[in-house]
Amino acid sequence: MHKINVRDKLSQFEDHWNPRIVAELNGQQVKLVKFQGEFVWHSHQQEDEMFFVLDGQFNMEFRDKTVTIKQNEFLVVPRGVDHRPVAREEVAVMLFEPSSTLNTGDAVNELTKKNLERI
Amino acid sequence: MHKINVRDKLSQFEDHWNPRIVAELNGQQVKLVKFQGEFVWHSHQQEDEMFFVLDGQFNMEFRDKTVTIKQNEFLVVPRGVDHRPVAREEVAVMLFEPSSTLNTGDAVNELTKKNLERI
Repeated sequence: MHKINVRDKLSQFEDHWNPRIVAELNGQQVKLVKFQGEFVWHSHQQEDEMFFVLDGQFNMEFRDKTVTIKQNEFLVVPRGVDHRPVAREEVAVMLFEPSSTLNTGDAVNELTKKNLERI
Repeated sequence: MHKINVRDKLSQFEDHWNPRIVAELNGQQVKLVKFQGEFVWHSHQQEDEMFFVLDGQFNMEFRDKTVTIKQNEFLVVPRGVDHRPVAREEVAVMLFEPSSTLNTGDAVNELTKKNLERI
């Protein structure tokens, strides 16, 4: 029952596409991540995923459209939907998703991060 | 797959202690609420509850301590733990919690809100 300051946590890492776990509740995890550049197309078969922008903005690409998400905005990507985050400039994002969620979903490759760090 | 702007949503209501549902994912709900004044002591037997402060600050009282939570900070209250939010001035909060969560938990009274509005 200690509070978590997302700015303090974000200052603890600099790398991109590498989510950190900052809290867990109800089988879900709260993660912080920095995006920059283009990620990989992927989907999650079992998990809906929420992206809340803390700083900056990014584009969430879907097969049929692109949604730009800025500070104070969030988007829920339903399970099974192909998506690809693209950030021209660095963006800080808070993720809310089931503990089972893998960052690259069904596209396991060199960007896949397992055993995420808890900060 | 439309984005949600929390500032826009917050501008749509003024009353206190009356959460609005703004998104659902994985059996959880994202709610926005404004607090002002003292709430009621309560706990949730089955649900952990996350409070993320969007604007302002409030005190989360526990039986043995008080935690002040400000903008960019959040707190997870584990299931079964007595708590009471107290806000001297208005504060805007984003909640993440299971869809089954009742705002007053085990303390059903005139502050209890059922059939929350979706905005």
